[in-house]
Amino acid sequence: MHQELQQHINHFITISSEELNEVLQYFRPLQLKKKQNLLTEGSICKHNYFTAKGCLRLFFINEKGIEQTTQFAIENWWLADYTSFEKQQPSSYNIQAVEKSDVLALSYTGQEKLLQQHPVMERYFRLMHQRAHAAAQFRIKSLYSLSREELYNIFSSAHPEFVQRIPQYLLASFLGFTPEYLSEIRRKTIS
Amino acid sequence: MHQELQQHINHFITISSEELNEVLQYFRPLQLKKKQNLLTEGSICKHNYFTAKGCLRLFFINEKGIEQTTQFAIENWWLADYTSFEKQQPSSYNIQAVEKSDVLALSYTGQEKLLQQHPVMERYFRLMHQRAHAAAQFRIKSLYSLSREELYNIFSSAHPEFVQRIPQYLLASFLGFTPEYLSEIRRKTIS
Repeated sequence: MHQELQQHINHFITISSEELNEVLQYFRPLQLKKKQNLLTEGSICKHNYFTAKGCLRLFFINEKGIEQTTQFAIENWWLADYTSFEKQQPSSYNIQAVEKSDVLALSYTGQEKLLQQHPVMERYFRLMHQRAHAAAQFRIKSLYSLSREELYNIFSSAHPEFVQRIPQYLLASFLGFTPEYLSEIRRKTIS
Repeated sequence: MHQELQQHINHFITISSEELNEVLQYFRPLQLKKKQNLLTEGSICKHNYFTAKGCLRLFFINEKGIEQTTQFAIENWWLADYTSFEKQQPSSYNIQAVEKSDVLALSYTGQEKLLQQHPVMERYFRLMHQRAHAAAQFRIKSLYSLSREELYNIFSSAHPEFVQRIPQYLLASFLGFTPEYLSEIRRKTIS
């Protein structure tokens, strides 16, 4: 599963194959079962996760005791609670595998060492965070400006395979719906 | 106004004063009047802005023709529409000075050259985007989990000076309130 990350790094930066081989040593492969937890609320987010295959989700438990999903990471996306990761303080989030997933984990101390030894990787992570920052700006705008139905329509046009693939109750949670409301919109869209 | 940026860079990375002097050449100082525009919807976001003094805001015009503020950048924060900036495509946002402000502008081509000539700056920008990414995760969680009143209370405890300083109608817009609702909450909090 290092191969997926290798291709992804090569897509974004110029790095020799010798150096890239050294870089890949910092990542620990994990094979996750569906619903396996990588982070639970109250513990420290010690790793930054790259999804090689499958899908992760970031969620918190709201006041009503309901899981609220705020972010997904499918293939080639990174996921962590970056406040907890950066400050090495307890997280208010959970990270879980949505489906059977292959993931590469980079520890906080591993990342620091990696970037000291291979500063070329600063560019890779700068580009990853810049991309995620742009995606978050779009998401915040959507939460302010779109009706729930528009949100669903834009999201499903942009990511049709993803919408087919993930459990509908998680998609509903991510979009701020009840599962019943999502079924209603889907019926409307199909008919 | 290069001095503020110099201090900020020195706070986050290790760089020689000679190299830092060269780095600072890439930034163009701008003195902005209150409400001066740096980006208007439909044009390309050609610069990444560092606030040395004052405050910028990112906003869009919603369907009802009302300005919706989604982000502020006070001293030592960066602001751009990063989708438009990264892809050099038209923006759906506006950037405006909230008050008289001193800003440093780094153009898209300037940033590319800067990072080629001074790769040490990749670390600085990686840290800036990581921090902004963490802030956006917190903001998205807040939009899902908090009532408007809780949002105001948490925001004003975290940033009391900021709440005093910016026009109340902008704070209301940022928090998703009407200005009337904000006045009501403030009265309640004071009494």
